[in-house]
This record gives sequence, C-alpha cells and structure tokens, in this order.
Amino acid sequence: MEKVNIAEKLSLFSDYWNPRIVGELNGQQVKLVKFKGEFIWHHHEHEDEMFYVIDGEFTMELRDKNIHLSANEFFIVPRGVEHRPVAINEVSIMLFEPKETLNTGNKKSELTQENLKHI
Amino acid sequence: MEKVNIAEKLSLFSDYWNPRIVGELNGQQVKLVKFKGEFIWHHHEHEDEMFYVIDGEFTMELRDKNIHLSANEFFIVPRGVEHRPVAINEVSIMLFEPKETLNTGNKKSELTQENLKHI
Repeated sequence: MEKVNIAEKLSLFSDYWNPRIVGELNGQQVKLVKFKGEFIWHHHEHEDEMFYVIDGEFTMELRDKNIHLSANEFFIVPRGVEHRPVAINEVSIMLFEPKETLNTGNKKSELTQENLKHI
Repeated sequence: MEKVNIAEKLSLFSDYWNPRIVGELNGQQVKLVKFKGEFIWHHHEHEDEMFYVIDGEFTMELRDKNIHLSANEFFIVPRGVEHRPVAINEVSIMLFEPKETLNTGNKKSELTQENLKHI
C-alpha cells in the first residue's frame, strides 16, 4: 500500500511500445508506456482499453476516424474496434485495462509483449 | 467514441464530494470529483478504489498511516480497508472503480451520492 508517482516510474524506462505495470485493482491493471512511431493495426476481442496521455501527444487511428490526444486527455477504445496508435514524437501514456490484455491484441508480432514487468 | 478532456469536464462542476462519471469500460467507471475538507471514514466491501490526483493535493488517511498525494500521483485503496480523504484546499481527482461503487462505501450518510451524473 504505497502511492505511485508517475514521473518517477516513467524515469525508470525509455523503450517504446513496452508497457510496465504500476498498479492492479479489480482484475484491471494500470500500466505506463511510451510510444514513438507507428504501432500495428489490431483489436482486442474481450477488452476495452483506456489511453490517458500523461505527457506529449499522439493520434489514435481508427478505421473511420482519427482521434488526436494531448496531455490530460483520454480515449477508450471499445473491445472489437480496430485501432493503431501513431506518435510523431515521444508520448507517455497511462493505460487502464483488464490484466489479460495483450498489447498487440489479436495480432501476434515481434511487437507483442507477453511478460510485462511490474515497476 | 469521443475523447475526454479532463480540464473541460472539471470546468462543468464545482461542488465537492460529488463524483461525475466521464468514462466506462470493462464494468469499471472513470469519475472526476473535487474534494475539500474532511470526508467520513468508510470502506468498500467488494471494490478496490484508485485515486489519481489531477490538480492540488490531499491526504488519504488510513487507520495505520497517512498517504499524502500530489498531482500525478495515485493510490489504490484495497477493498475492506478503511479510509478517509482530507483536503485542506480544493483538489481534483480522477477515480477508477467498479461501477457498483458507492462514494461512502459501507456508511450511508447525507454525503452518499446514489445517482451519479454522466458529464
């Protein structure tokens, strides 16, 4: 039972597309991740996913529109909806999603992270 | 499927201890709330509760210690653990918790908010 300081946790890693677990509650996990560049198109069969921008900005591409997000904005991608995050510059994100959620959803690839670290 | 801007939502209300719902996913809700003063001691039988500080600071009193939280810090109160938030000055908080969560947990009082508004 300790508090979590976001800036302190973000200082512990610098790689992209590799979420770290910073909290767990009600079967959900709170994760921090840094994005830069283009991810892959994917969806999650059973999980809704929340992206909260801590610092920076990025675009969540959907098949029918783009959502541009800046610091202190969030977007929830409903289960089943194809999406692709794209960040021109580095952006730091807090994720809130079921603990079973795989970062690449239905698309296993070299970007898939199966064993996320708790930090 | 729209993004949520936290500052914009916070500008829509000014009362204390009255959470507004700003998002829903996986049976959980994202809420915004403003605190000022002392709340009541209570616990939640079945729900873990996450308090993320958007702006300001407050103290989460537990029976055996106090957790002081500032902007961009969060704390998860596990189910069953008695707690009481205390804020000397106004603080804006984002909550993540199961949608069944009642703000005063096991203690029904005049502070209990049963029908939260979506904003």
